[in-house]
Amino acid sequence: MKELVLGVIGCGRIGKMHTDNIIKYFPNVKIKGICDAAIDPEWATERNIPIVSDINELLADKEIEAVLIAAPSAFHVDLIKQAAAAGKHIFCEKPLAFELNRIQEAIDAVEAAGVKFQVGFNRRFDADCKCVHDKVAAGQIGEPHIVKITNRDPLRPNPKFIPNSGGMFMDMTVHDFDMARYVSGQDVVEVYATGACLVDPQIAELGDIDTTLITLKLANGALCMVDSTRETNYGYDQRLEVFGEKGQIKAQNLGETSVVSNIPGVGQVTDNPKWSFVERYFDAYANQMKAFIAYLSDDNAKSPADGYDTKNAVAIAIAAKKSFEENRPVKLSEVM
Amino acid sequence: MKELVLGVIGCGRIGKMHTDNIIKYFPNVKIKGICDAAIDPEWATERNIPIVSDINELLADKEIEAVLIAAPSAFHVDLIKQAAAAGKHIFCEKPLAFELNRIQEAIDAVEAAGVKFQVGFNRRFDADCKCVHDKVAAGQIGEPHIVKITNRDPLRPNPKFIPNSGGMFMDMTVHDFDMARYVSGQDVVEVYATGACLVDPQIAELGDIDTTLITLKLANGALCMVDSTRETNYGYDQRLEVFGEKGQIKAQNLGETSVVSNIPGVGQVTDNPKWSFVERYFDAYANQMKAFIAYLSDDNAKSPADGYDTKNAVAIAIAAKKSFEENRPVKLSEVM
Amino acid sequence: MKELVLGVIGCGRIGKMHTDNIIKYFPNVKIKGICDAAIDPEWATERNIPIVSDINELLADKEIEAVLIAAPSAFHVDLIKQAAAAGKHIFCEKPLAFELNRIQEAIDAVEAAGVKFQVGFNRRFDADCKCVHDKVAAGQIGEPHIVKITNRDPLRPNPKFIPNSGGMFMDMTVHDFDMARYVSGQDVVEVYATGACLVDPQIAELGDIDTTLITLKLANGALCMVDSTRETNYGYDQRLEVFGEKGQIKAQNLGETSVVSNIPGVGQVTDNPKWSFVERYFDAYANQMKAFIAYLSDDNAKSPADGYDTKNAVAIAIAAKKSFEENRPVKLSEVM
Amino acid sequence: MKELVLGVIGCGRIGKMHTDNIIKYFPNVKIKGICDAAIDPEWATERNIPIVSDINELLADKEIEAVLIAAPSAFHVDLIKQAAAAGKHIFCEKPLAFELNRIQEAIDAVEAAGVKFQVGFNRRFDADCKCVHDKVAAGQIGEPHIVKITNRDPLRPNPKFIPNSGGMFMDMTVHDFDMARYVSGQDVVEVYATGACLVDPQIAELGDIDTTLITLKLANGALCMVDSTRETNYGYDQRLEVFGEKGQIKAQNLGETSVVSNIPGVGQVTDNPKWSFVERYFDAYANQMKAFIAYLSDDNAKSPADGYDTKNAVAIAIAAKKSFEENRPVKLSEVM
Repeated sequence: MKELVLGVIGCGRIGKMHTDNIIKYFPNVKIKGICDAAIDPEWATERNIPIVSDINELLADKEIEAVLIAAPSAFHVDLIKQAAAAGKHIFCEKPLAFELNRIQEAIDAVEAAGVKFQVGFNRRFDADCKCVHDKVAAGQIGEPHIVKITNRDPLRPNPKFIPNSGGMFMDMTVHDFDMARYVSGQDVVEVYATGACLVDPQIAELGDIDTTLITLKLANGALCMVDSTRETNYGYDQRLEVFGEKGQIKAQNLGETSVVSNIPGVGQVTDNPKWSFVERYFDAYANQMKAFIAYLSDDNAKSPADGYDTKNAVAIAIAAKKSFEENRPVKLSEVM
Repeated sequence: MKELVLGVIGCGRIGKMHTDNIIKYFPNVKIKGICDAAIDPEWATERNIPIVSDINELLADKEIEAVLIAAPSAFHVDLIKQAAAAGKHIFCEKPLAFELNRIQEAIDAVEAAGVKFQVGFNRRFDADCKCVHDKVAAGQIGEPHIVKITNRDPLRPNPKFIPNSGGMFMDMTVHDFDMARYVSGQDVVEVYATGACLVDPQIAELGDIDTTLITLKLANGALCMVDSTRETNYGYDQRLEVFGEKGQIKAQNLGETSVVSNIPGVGQVTDNPKWSFVERYFDAYANQMKAFIAYLSDDNAKSPADGYDTKNAVAIAIAAKKSFEENRPVKLSEVM
Repeated sequence: MKELVLGVIGCGRIGKMHTDNIIKYFPNVKIKGICDAAIDPEWATERNIPIVSDINELLADKEIEAVLIAAPSAFHVDLIKQAAAAGKHIFCEKPLAFELNRIQEAIDAVEAAGVKFQVGFNRRFDADCKCVHDKVAAGQIGEPHIVKITNRDPLRPNPKFIPNSGGMFMDMTVHDFDMARYVSGQDVVEVYATGACLVDPQIAELGDIDTTLITLKLANGALCMVDSTRETNYGYDQRLEVFGEKGQIKAQNLGETSVVSNIPGVGQVTDNPKWSFVERYFDAYANQMKAFIAYLSDDNAKSPADGYDTKNAVAIAIAAKKSFEENRPVKLSEVM
Repeated sequence: MKELVLGVIGCGRIGKMHTDNIIKYFPNVKIKGICDAAIDPEWATERNIPIVSDINELLADKEIEAVLIAAPSAFHVDLIKQAAAAGKHIFCEKPLAFELNRIQEAIDAVEAAGVKFQVGFNRRFDADCKCVHDKVAAGQIGEPHIVKITNRDPLRPNPKFIPNSGGMFMDMTVHDFDMARYVSGQDVVEVYATGACLVDPQIAELGDIDTTLITLKLANGALCMVDSTRETNYGYDQRLEVFGEKGQIKAQNLGETSVVSNIPGVGQVTDNPKWSFVERYFDAYANQMKAFIAYLSDDNAKSPADGYDTKNAVAIAIAAKKSFEENRPVKLSEVM
């Protein structure tokens, strides 16, 4: 592999994680500059990464071939447009935007520039989810009939987080909408969403819900259900199940260990699911960076999660919100 | 326990099973007569049960305290009315009827006569389902938030069976509708049903579906999803899951054995789910008869599955059908 | 099946269980008499079984074809000899005797009389153990190399039970010695037993142990280990594992239900193993009676657990005791 | 943490793995030189590690505080003595030596020099094994009574490997002997080993075995059994179980994924155990380096696997070989 040179735009928790994964797994990939108004200089110095104060300077650097964008979401589309115009390949964290036209602008910019573009749907790179996808894609269960996705956070968010989160459909289940398409290989044609505020009344006061069941109709006639909650108290419950004409494939929860205890008077005890997305998708985040580097390194490669994937997931979230508000099934064509 | 004397009306496969369970577990309960036009005389003789050719004769027998009704479904309501009028306690197989007014007639007759009345919702007596119910009822997970029920048959039915089956909602998922109420302790207030014919085009030609996802809204605001199919090819997939504010409780599939094989090149293999309702609910059917005898023997006992439970389950099935046909959520109050 | 007529000799807890299993599963098998000095008359009356006060009278009854012997162990061999001399087929509870020459007397009597003879090794009739046996016998793992058997009681016995128990090898692990032969299809050629008193010092004072690891060398060169304890506190831990050249087959513990709870702060909890042999081998005891009736009903059938099986299991127990006392491996040929 | 400077002596497969783990997890630890006659210069250049051709030069470098020794086993003791004399802290791969007096020489050298010393018992750093250890050490199961360890390789070794391997007890089960001590917190006092050549007759011709069951008596009276084979064909079977007065704790096999498939006619299929030690203990090797760095960084830390641990494990292997050859239990005091 020839040497790759990257720049990083935005370096909060996720940006740092991506950067460290690049350093860990690609000693030959050079990170030539990092640009974040609030960067911790010590963090950058420890890694020998120069801090660049001006994004334009970073984008003007001809040696830099690609950028990782992990700035606040509100800046994503504009940064993509700038980076694409500068001819950089792009990895951008999700969400691109909550509005489809803004996402389309990003897609248009990327296509016009002919640069590579990958969006941060991390779960596609989880070994278990990918294994389910691969087995379905290989025809092991024939045509998919029923898809079931469970996505449950361990602890309710701080209410302050809610107003700018995009709401439960956009913030939480958007991942599941992408997963439904990824794992079934089918587009979504209709959405029916129900929801309730059962965990925290403050969330209701802010106009959001904390518990939802969503039904998706897929293009091949298959049916998909998503269940999600803001709080389990027992860990990050992440399950995936695809049933088809020739059998069923499931990804189950993972615990920190496989240790089993037989405790008198209690039962046979194993680990609850890993606590949060940080533990559960630790390897998935690393795999995501590996996939980005592999994508950059192969001229014929297709993006493993492109702009249209993002647009679809967001459109489903918009349809879900509309469905919930109007209590009726909403066709994706109504919003897309 | 004082000696109980029963009569049996209708003695096909299910009637025989109930009768044999009574004989097996209650040597002291006397089955004084069996009434079925098509009864196998040898079967009755082996068990020393007199065959009675006329239902009126059976019902006129003062010694008989209770009857098991397992005749064809179309006769259920009329038989209940006759038996109630004769002062007999009644166990009747499901379905009572596909129409709510007919079910109400049965309820009215039973109430007017003051006789005991239990309907054949066998799954309530399965050890695993009951354990989930009991833990939820004991408050172990606090308030229920999400209920998930999987009900999948191993092999598609003969198409001849479809026209008189009542359709998928009435024939298959009616059990799940009862389970949703049983396990959550909540009534259903609204239904949204989707469906497709993905298994067998002949089923579509007969106006039915073979795959369905159904969303139920419960009275406490909780959400329930049911998924069902007419054919898995891998066994009778029966799962139940209740998630609440303090944790989650699940009943999983049971295999014929717990045996685990490590097979090179294949994997670690355990049993698929038991093949059909006969194997899966073998003990549940016995427990159901035990519950009926216990109910008869205790003057203060409440029916473990009464006429209103039946009426609710059927009303939900009617609402599901309407929802599917009109592709909109249907309130239970629209049909009940 | 032609009608069978049985007599029962000895009717304590196990005798009652066998009798009730016969009644439950074989309405056509007639139990013509029961003989036990301490019989509960009400129990017999409820089942319509005549009490016979004299064993000779029972054995003289020409109509009785077979007897179930469940008297105290000390009488087993003499009862077998009497019953065989009277031409009765025999099911006898284990242990036949603690001495090999006494067991040989029983075998000789049975062979001389040409009667059928089955001994109560109930675990051979457990669905899981039998499944492991059947898969091994069918060659699914090729030649067995390593056999592992876990046999652990839930609670220490009353110390009063110890002196007449035969000791830990004869009382507890004799079942495992039979299982090793049954599941591998191999005879045992050498034994090395270690033991300790770790649960209850009173057991040591009575000259016994409560914890043991035993190594068996099998005729084909395979190795077997048995681990056993008098007290787990968490249930009746019963596991079986056969490893061979083409894979591995295991029988695992069974809980009362398959229910899984996710409890915050505790973990994912399932049932501990069923509490005692009564729950764990409930079906095995019924299957054992079914096997006995099938054996009686088929003139070409081989006993599913015969006198030589018993003699082998007891000989291994004797060798284990000797090995433990002398702290050296003992060949079976030294004691048999 | 102040900057640490390390040198590497011996850089084959394991040496490279250790080096890469240091680089990956400790960007601040400097690897100042690598010394291996057969080093791949490109590999070192990619990592910017200077190649040092003379061990004495490396050991003379005052800046280097500690060395990783992963040279061929035959050189381990002499290298430890040289490094200790040079005042370097030492991590050395196992085995130190097959002879106890040679191991003692290493211990003496290390103690005389007052340097830190850690030996490569990688399994102590596996999350699951460590979890079992920690729970036992925390008293969760009270006093240990029975320890069971399964250690099975996926595929037989090349026969050429056997003659210098030290034999099955020294090469394979030495890890289990260390695990028995680690997890129980008890020394071993007596060993009885059985073995057979059931996998590959060539191994027998070379005077070794390929299948073994070993019984260890521990200082507190507890009993331990180890089972091991050179070939499963289904993966690297690694299990650990500690039973005690208050319950039981087990570490189970790990698959590559948690994915479950229901395949008609086959069963419910999950992953076989990970294939080899490379996959199974991938994280354990990284944790081992983390533990070494932590040990170096803490002046009061105790070695997580010291010379006496090694000496004990090797002594048990020597006793096991003697026990197998003489077919009798051998006290550790006979060989140590």
